[in-house]
Amino acid sequence: MLRLIIGNRAYSSWSLRGWLACKISALDFETVVLPMDTPEWDSGAAKGELPSGKVPVLWDGDIAVWDSLAIADWLADKVRNARVSRGHFWPQDMAARALARSMSAEMHSGFQALRSGCAMNLKYNFPDFVPSPEVLADVARIDALWSRARDVFGTHADVAHEGPFLFGGFGAADAMYAPVVTRIRTYGLPVSDVSAAYCEAVAAHPWMVEWTEAAKAETYPFARYLVPGGVPA
Amino acid sequence: MLRLIIGNRAYSSWSLRGWLACKISALDFETVVLPMDTPEWDSGAAKGELPSGKVPVLWDGDIAVWDSLAIADWLADKVRNARVSRGHFWPQDMAARALARSMSAEMHSGFQALRSGCAMNLKYNFPDFVPSPEVLADVARIDALWSRARDVFGTHADVAHEGPFLFGGFGAADAMYAPVVTRIRTYGLPVSDVSAAYCEAVAAHPWMVEWTEAAKAETYPFARYLVPGGVPA
Repeated sequence: MLRLIIGNRAYSSWSLRGWLACKISALDFETVVLPMDTPEWDSGAAKGELPSGKVPVLWDGDIAVWDSLAIADWLADKVRNARVSRGHFWPQDMAARALARSMSAEMHSGFQALRSGCAMNLKYNFPDFVPSPEVLADVARIDALWSRARDVFGTHADVAHEGPFLFGGFGAADAMYAPVVTRIRTYGLPVSDVSAAYCEAVAAHPWMVEWTEAAKAETYPFARYLVPGGVPA
Repeated sequence: MLRLIIGNRAYSSWSLRGWLACKISALDFETVVLPMDTPEWDSGAAKGELPSGKVPVLWDGDIAVWDSLAIADWLADKVRNARVSRGHFWPQDMAARALARSMSAEMHSGFQALRSGCAMNLKYNFPDFVPSPEVLADVARIDALWSRARDVFGTHADVAHEGPFLFGGFGAADAMYAPVVTRIRTYGLPVSDVSAAYCEAVAAHPWMVEWTEAAKAETYPFARYLVPGGVPA
């Protein structure tokens, strides 16, 4: 069976992306939590479980795939190679796929202000948070990308993909942006009505509900994220 | 015809990656240079040629794909969908593919010390450059990845891919790391014999020769990269 190694569900945004990719694949997989900043993490890293020193890592026997975007694409290849109709990572339509891949890559390497200024935190909300201009610029760019996906491709790119997500059904681009959805709620960041509706749909998805409830139940010590002004989520 | 918009060949490492991806696809494409920090750049950005404000961007009619990794994957989809035997972006073997995708994603989002400390520069070499410990750590990690690819997968993963590159033939992972190969030469960074041989093979590839010669012939003003200690390459 596939084995996905993740960090703390409450704080590890890349772990959430990798886990959602596994869900999209519809393959059976086991989830192993390696809490960050603990002896378990150090022993896991020492055992060679983390080839790049980071989570998530997907193990398929002795094959390791690290990095959430690589995991999504590797699983997309695997389910296609198996000639089984499973999850839909990328839209079929090549124009929709261009936007889905481009915006996913932009998330993968960009939005540093949002990522460093508004760390994912599923245990606390920060109602008094004041975003910097750089954070607001990142959010505005993301809002524009989400709106374009919803406006142009969300409803008609591919009948099999109809739904409330970026390109209809929940796919790889949604997995890449799911931690941003949580940040918008955690820090009260401003988005358009189209994007607000998208955030609602993501938050209500059963996979996100499952992950969020498990995150709230975590009790790992992780002082780094216990910043002032937080109220329990 | 496909149209690829790039920045200066001498300095834009992501442009090189996107251009190599187009070469791998074996599709016809036109290259448009939009020199950075010039009025041409500003007018190109203003015309909506650069959806993310960055290069490279691949246009296929009115479809835009930005970010070099997205371009590689989108082209891989396009040539597969066309059912034509063209370039090989990713190795067929799923274990080799796991390493190729993982290391490409790691390049895409990582190695910040190397990227900021040793900017790609095809016009000058810096024989007196003293790398920081962080740069050396990045190079050591890359050296280990290259060596693993060459040792484990380079010669037997897939007969069609035999060759001196990471997984045999020149593929997407080679495109992602090609600018690192140039940096190792530009700044005299230390690598193992296996990696040194790989660097030689990349530098001698006709696509790299074509790109490098065009870069040396560029005359765009770009003061940012004219740092002290450089000798013409």
